[in-house]
Amino acid sequence: MARPTSPVLSVEKIARAALALVDRTGELVVGRLARDLGVSASSLYHHLPSKAAIVEAVRAEVFRAMPRPPEGVLDGTADRAEGEAALRALLRAYRDCFAAHPRVIGLLTSHTVSAPEVLAVYDDLTATLLAAGVRESRLLDVVTVLDSFVIGSALDLAAPEEVWDAERAGHPALAAALRAAPRGRQRADLAFDAGVDLLVGGLVRG
Amino acid sequence: MARPTSPVLSVEKIARAALALVDRTGELVVGRLARDLGVSASSLYHHLPSKAAIVEAVRAEVFRAMPRPPEGVLDGTADRAEGEAALRALLRAYRDCFAAHPRVIGLLTSHTVSAPEVLAVYDDLTATLLAAGVRESRLLDVVTVLDSFVIGSALDLAAPEEVWDAERAGHPALAAALRAAPRGRQRADLAFDAGVDLLVGGLVRG
Repeated sequence: MARPTSPVLSVEKIARAALALVDRTGELVVGRLARDLGVSASSLYHHLPSKAAIVEAVRAEVFRAMPRPPEGVLDGTADRAEGEAALRALLRAYRDCFAAHPRVIGLLTSHTVSAPEVLAVYDDLTATLLAAGVRESRLLDVVTVLDSFVIGSALDLAAPEEVWDAERAGHPALAAALRAAPRGRQRADLAFDAGVDLLVGGLVRG
Repeated sequence: MARPTSPVLSVEKIARAALALVDRTGELVVGRLARDLGVSASSLYHHLPSKAAIVEAVRAEVFRAMPRPPEGVLDGTADRAEGEAALRALLRAYRDCFAAHPRVIGLLTSHTVSAPEVLAVYDDLTATLLAAGVRESRLLDVVTVLDSFVIGSALDLAAPEEVWDAERAGHPALAAALRAAPRGRQRADLAFDAGVDLLVGGLVRG
């Protein structure tokens, strides 16, 4: 008896294929996704009823690897130093999730976050900010500032080894600054740590 | 006598069409750009010899509206307060240039900056940082931190009115934070100003 040749669909399978498609092309075109999966668009929509739902499945897939903060942060028994350490770890992991899929960033930031798994990540972040000493009235400001910095840093981490071709156009100040600094991953990591230090220090004390 | 129907090409005309194409589709496909302009790819390449050259023309187009810092900042006679004020103005203008073209951001961050007009913007930024009191040995770190924050803030400014659908999944801490905060442009602007305050304050004194 012949086995069915059409693949068995699942939300996870669609999310992975959609992520791979955006990684490859920078766009999420539903007809192309259906073709990649060897199915019809209507069988896709049986699992994820709209393009927005597919975007949210991609978002959940990108953040699948996010760690949880330590138990003490979540139950409110951690001290501020533990809260700050947990915050730094969370921000780095968040950057690395985005940096692994730079072409997906624009798609994700142009859609409202509604994936429950990703809202849970933001809830963990909020709990960690409280543990680190951020005042409740500033929480959303702080989440937005950190979000913006992390997203920009993820794009920076995914940038070419040489970000500025400063020798070319003869800009002496920029060229000297570039010669004095490390390059590639090390440049990106040093800047990320410097930014996190400033933001976390200022936000916790502010 | 019939007038020629093929448009007269120029670098600026190609840059504008390429920017419009990426704004519309999120991608820079050279064949599609040539079609948009009603010309052949080879006549395109007569003006801009590679895809990288087209990307740089797009970059210059995005930043065409960037203001110059005041004369005193450029000639080194400004005091620190003037330097800081010029830095804030530059960062906001830089964010607004990116935010007007959110789908272009990923294309620009994945290519080395070599457009002379844009390297000149970074040179102005470097001069302004020196005027604001940043030490020379930290310049590139500082440029990278600010760049990352500004790029993330531009994506945030272009985000939907509702960034998080927090009511939906029942995350009490995040939902309370969202209810307490402004939305849309006001949310984005407040967070941008808060981040600039922290970063500029810390970087200038650090």
